Amino acid sequence: MNAEIIAVGTELLLGQILNTNAQFLSQKLAAIGMNMYYQTVVGDNADRLRSAIETAQQRADILIFTGGLGPTKDDLTKETIALAVGSSLVYNDDALRSIEEYYARTGRTFTENNKKQALVLEGSVVFPNDHGMAPGMGLRRDNKTYILLPGPPKEMRPMYDSYVEPFLLPLTSKETLHSRVLRFFGIGESQLEETLQDLIDTQTNPTIAPLAAEGEVTLRLTAKHASKDEANRLIDNVERAILDRVGEFFYGYDQDSLQGKLVSLLKKTGMTLASAESLTGGLFSEKITEVAGVSSFFYGGVICYSNEVKQHVLGVPAGVLETDGAVSEASAALLAENVSKLLKADIGISFTGVAGPGELEGKPPGTVFVGIAGKGMKTLVVPLKLWGTRQQIRERAMRYGMYHLYKKLEG
Amino acid sequence: MNAEIIAVGTELLLGQILNTNAQFLSQKLAAIGMNMYYQTVVGDNADRLRSAIETAQQRADILIFTGGLGPTKDDLTKETIALAVGSSLVYNDDALRSIEEYYARTGRTFTENNKKQALVLEGSVVFPNDHGMAPGMGLRRDNKTYILLPGPPKEMRPMYDSYVEPFLLPLTSKETLHSRVLRFFGIGESQLEETLQDLIDTQTNPTIAPLAAEGEVTLRLTAKHASKDEANRLIDNVERAILDRVGEFFYGYDQDSLQGKLVSLLKKTGMTLASAESLTGGLFSEKITEVAGVSSFFYGGVICYSNEVKQHVLGVPAGVLETDGAVSEASAALLAENVSKLLKADIGISFTGVAGPGELEGKPPGTVFVGIAGKGMKTLVVPLKLWGTRQQIRERAMRYGMYHLYKKLEG
Repeated sequence: MNAEIIAVGTELLLGQILNTNAQFLSQKLAAIGMNMYYQTVVGDNADRLRSAIETAQQRADILIFTGGLGPTKDDLTKETIALAVGSSLVYNDDALRSIEEYYARTGRTFTENNKKQALVLEGSVVFPNDHGMAPGMGLRRDNKTYILLPGPPKEMRPMYDSYVEPFLLPLTSKETLHSRVLRFFGIGESQLEETLQDLIDTQTNPTIAPLAAEGEVTLRLTAKHASKDEANRLIDNVERAILDRVGEFFYGYDQDSLQGKLVSLLKKTGMTLASAESLTGGLFSEKITEVAGVSSFFYGGVICYSNEVKQHVLGVPAGVLETDGAVSEASAALLAENVSKLLKADIGISFTGVAGPGELEGKPPGTVFVGIAGKGMKTLVVPLKLWGTRQQIRERAMRYGMYHLYKKLEG
Repeated sequence: MNAEIIAVGTELLLGQILNTNAQFLSQKLAAIGMNMYYQTVVGDNADRLRSAIETAQQRADILIFTGGLGPTKDDLTKETIALAVGSSLVYNDDALRSIEEYYARTGRTFTENNKKQALVLEGSVVFPNDHGMAPGMGLRRDNKTYILLPGPPKEMRPMYDSYVEPFLLPLTSKETLHSRVLRFFGIGESQLEETLQDLIDTQTNPTIAPLAAEGEVTLRLTAKHASKDEANRLIDNVERAILDRVGEFFYGYDQDSLQGKLVSLLKKTGMTLASAESLTGGLFSEKITEVAGVSSFFYGGVICYSNEVKQHVLGVPAGVLETDGAVSEASAALLAENVSKLLKADIGISFTGVAGPGELEGKPPGTVFVGIAGKGMKTLVVPLKLWGTRQQIRERAMRYGMYHLYKKLEG
């Protein structure tokens, strides 16, 4: 079984957008043991798309299309596939209903051309679009499988995970790959790799692949076995050997995130939280409130971007701002303590520092202090020396804050 | 004349890297008026690369290869092309010298397999690699042109700019493409297209291409003309016709962003700003502070996630929270007015609403109110009905806030 990705869109040929869908799908297909030999990009042109389909039919078992399912005239992926495989297009009631509901919900005026999005290939399995209007499709015809997916990544990615992978799995080889990702924070990629070098070099099943993500390091353990349980047993053994060495930096698995782990720990402890953000400008609070249902423990915060707000709203004395400065251990401590009092929360967390590009108070970009305070708790201030662009420094500060708050609540 | 990009590398098929080379080259080729109908990705496999070459020979005049020029065994782009076009490989003295110099400079030990990188197609124009070892090549054979470029973007990009574009220019038509992107907010793609359908259908030079990005819609106007000024005149005329119909939704050109436009307008007006964020949880403030140097006008804000904070920190009376609710026009107005007073800023902007997934105060997800208030300004409250996931609703609310604040300050 081998797959070919055919991305449809003139905007790709003009370089207006980057073909991130191809990378996403390639990773997903590799993970389920699906081979891929070719990828194609073709514009919004029926004849050339038709010929790309015919070329792919010669060399692939599974043709995966992204893009060209929208409402406009130049969206012609399904129309062209219908001609190529001798199928026809029929209206799908569920899709039609969800499109009409979408317009009802948003109060926007329904335009006729949107109905086009509810047309599907006759005899195809329809994949609902939980994040947009155009549904996806899976069609088996003459020993070939045709998968049609919308172009916008925000629609395509969840559709693949929820509906397409389960549709494809029966087609993949018996001996499939099973992966587990171990997530670490506070240790560099090279340091992690050095510590585990002998394991990484000698391991074959599962393999150990280090991967540096933004602000953290992950290890992907991938075992090849017909039985999922046996694969997991193989992975368990290697995981134990790894955590014996670097367990202190380990925080979670697979889709775990610092954000998610911190939120569930706060829910468990029943402690309430408030934030005081200077250099992060709201980034920490925004990440916490990305998760639904945090209002039970997250009261809110103060974005104290200017010193006036630090002084008049959060009560950092002018003297401290003059002598120690806004970017200091003293300010970080007072911001954390006072925001917890002002918002009547059990814990206050503060972020103050220099995001750059320029210096502040004679302190270089990357100088950051994170404060954690609360009733019956000795105030903790973590001084950080971060590197990177302005936005990287802000994001790393936010992540270190989550990490240290998590460790403090956990310990 | 039309070109096809053939990216060679198994790492692309596995999704280990993103094909940014294709986007870079697509933009560059469009800018010199070169048509492109297809892009292909193929792995490090001689037979499949050979067949990709034969397919491209059928449909393109210029075949542009990226990757597979390195020293290792699985680098076989030039070897395969040599077989496909009946050319042979010869050592290039300049390339050999620069490889040896590179090793001398870096003090690394020269290994024999690196000589392979100095082999070039006989009869080809050799493009020096100013940022690495493997040279590029340009070969004309049987009315086809073959361009070979290294895979690493930091080597490929400067090589294209310095040597490949001058090599290609004589092959392109005198008429080149000139594009302008118009950015719209607050109108859907299909509605925009329906309004402009007759223009889109009848326009040939410039062409009008709609493209939906997250939370906004763009139109790309592309004119073909030898003279840039004349092309711009053609584009100006069509832009005027478009803005006559949908000008109210227009906010900027090309690389403009709502965030960037708002920040520069605030700087210009000298007005100071404070935020009160409930459902957005800090997202608006975080986006504003992404830009360096906003501290001159952005004082900060209050994240009033809980009703206690709305009441005790931002002074929304308990009565209003009980009768109208936190998600109401009245609360949005008071939050905007009071945060501007509390932080002593000229303008206050507030975001309150239901991000979902569940209802709040019996109001469905997507119910959002944005408040804009300030001294000597009639308080404006914009009621919104948004759609999407929790995070999409939060991001759309943030963008609508930026948009309405921009229009208010602009008007």
